[in-house]
Amino acid sequence: MNIQNILVTGRIFKEIEKMMESNTLNKSFKFIAQERVTQEDLDWADAYVSFAPIKDLDDRNIKWVHSLGAGVDSFLLNREWNAGVLLTRTVCSFGEKISEYCLSYILRDIQLHDVFEKDQLEKVWAPKTPKLLKDQKVLVFGTGEIGLEIAKKFNLLGIQVFGVSMTGTQKEPFQQVYKTEEIHQVTFDANYVINTLPLTDQTYHLFNQSLFQRFNQVTFINCGRGGSVDDGALIEALNQGHVRQAVLDVFSVEPLPEDHAFWCRKDIKITPHISAITSPEDAVACFLETMENIENNSPLSNKVDTSKGY
Amino acid sequence: MNIQNILVTGRIFKEIEKMMESNTLNKSFKFIAQERVTQEDLDWADAYVSFAPIKDLDDRNIKWVHSLGAGVDSFLLNREWNAGVLLTRTVCSFGEKISEYCLSYILRDIQLHDVFEKDQLEKVWAPKTPKLLKDQKVLVFGTGEIGLEIAKKFNLLGIQVFGVSMTGTQKEPFQQVYKTEEIHQVTFDANYVINTLPLTDQTYHLFNQSLFQRFNQVTFINCGRGGSVDDGALIEALNQGHVRQAVLDVFSVEPLPEDHAFWCRKDIKITPHISAITSPEDAVACFLETMENIENNSPLSNKVDTSKGY
Repeated sequence: MNIQNILVTGRIFKEIEKMMESNTLNKSFKFIAQERVTQEDLDWADAYVSFAPIKDLDDRNIKWVHSLGAGVDSFLLNREWNAGVLLTRTVCSFGEKISEYCLSYILRDIQLHDVFEKDQLEKVWAPKTPKLLKDQKVLVFGTGEIGLEIAKKFNLLGIQVFGVSMTGTQKEPFQQVYKTEEIHQVTFDANYVINTLPLTDQTYHLFNQSLFQRFNQVTFINCGRGGSVDDGALIEALNQGHVRQAVLDVFSVEPLPEDHAFWCRKDIKITPHISAITSPEDAVACFLETMENIENNSPLSNKVDTSKGY
Repeated sequence: MNIQNILVTGRIFKEIEKMMESNTLNKSFKFIAQERVTQEDLDWADAYVSFAPIKDLDDRNIKWVHSLGAGVDSFLLNREWNAGVLLTRTVCSFGEKISEYCLSYILRDIQLHDVFEKDQLEKVWAPKTPKLLKDQKVLVFGTGEIGLEIAKKFNLLGIQVFGVSMTGTQKEPFQQVYKTEEIHQVTFDANYVINTLPLTDQTYHLFNQSLFQRFNQVTFINCGRGGSVDDGALIEALNQGHVRQAVLDVFSVEPLPEDHAFWCRKDIKITPHISAITSPEDAVACFLETMENIENNSPLSNKVDTSKGY
């Protein structure tokens, strides 16, 4: 594939432009804020780099779309995709970031930070024994780039990690990988359930009342997509004790609306979609690597299967 | 050494008794609460197992004292020790416990938990980028059992770990080990400083004004002994920004007195000496292993050098 004119837009286009200033690639670039992209720019481009599509993106000369985020639901969900257009996504260090995010909340929980913080406010000295990572069972939904990196890091620390994927293909170092459709037949005694799945037609509201009922006093961590969770079912599961605590980084609507019930619950910790922020360094490194692979007709590990949606 | 009569006391003597019920050792045991131990019991015993000495412990037939804790300052500091008596200590899984304790507070810090928690209370959606473990530099005081385990675990996670010890002996995987007396000549750019040192004449008030001034905006974590810190100097260092935050598990006086200035500071997190609680399982496993090694004249990795104090 021959790529010549590359249009870069999205939240970090300026930083990317700065980092690419000294590039010696024989390409033409335009770095433009999303709201300023014109029809002319789109006609000019044969590659489009951003976090999300833009109006009138389709039916142009664009041959390659590169997503600056790991999730590509904004490009594919409830949208037609022209099968002739290559879609790639940024995968770089998201696994590392998300695994540290999850680990931080697991450790905070087993080390009883909130208990001791409350005791300190009341000047109470009341020793309690923290739990150890090696005694924790974690169930990770998604065994792709991100889920696998979580499993590797957690395994190093002695955590027992189980997985769930669409195919149920066994993968080291997951102790076992279940098939998504099997999960209603399995009894889980996990302490932590982590969602890393992409949002597709199959994963929309996967975490519904029926699934949450399979759990017992788990901490549910969502760093996949908010749309995979039925918000009402999560609140019900918290009220009933199937879920003891939720740590949510992603939401159906972002920013989370001010009147949403999640904000005020003491058993929900909210973070503003920060578990895997694409840094300009990550973005540029992954974009350049992808472009090089495209030009050399090398295999693309970050090519999106647009029929599957991830 | 021939050991026949073993006196077990201290906080967890009952649990130890229960776990030892089915033991087939050809030994006599007495399991007694510390305040109920009589002179007769002490005369009977040739081994004493507890967290701390007892009045009239010395000048008896006791040939072996086994500390249920890792720290033996209660046995040695400001006290004469009869060089003919073997002193061993529990070392088992303290390194694992303390390294998870420290990691939990480092991750909480770089993942900005407190920032997002405050934002949630105000329903504010304000993304900020967490930092990664691989970009953190940690300086660990003490390169023994516990310091070394911290270094190993942190190294696995990509953290850059440096050490300080009395001898300055280089040890993998510390990137570099400094000698205690060198530390005033070194410029540190550590993000985290962890104390794991035992309390001895040499480490009493080691963390004084002069040492704290070497740091810049560090988080100071103390899971060694409270007596190694000059409390007033720590507060001064917090006020001046040499220390940005302190996480303290140990104190000069425990429980921490109600009128102590530490309780009310927002930049100090207090935990009630829980970073390495000896579980009855740990205690029994380590005691049995030590006794077996003594009987077989095998090397004792947990023998205390009573002249050094650890």
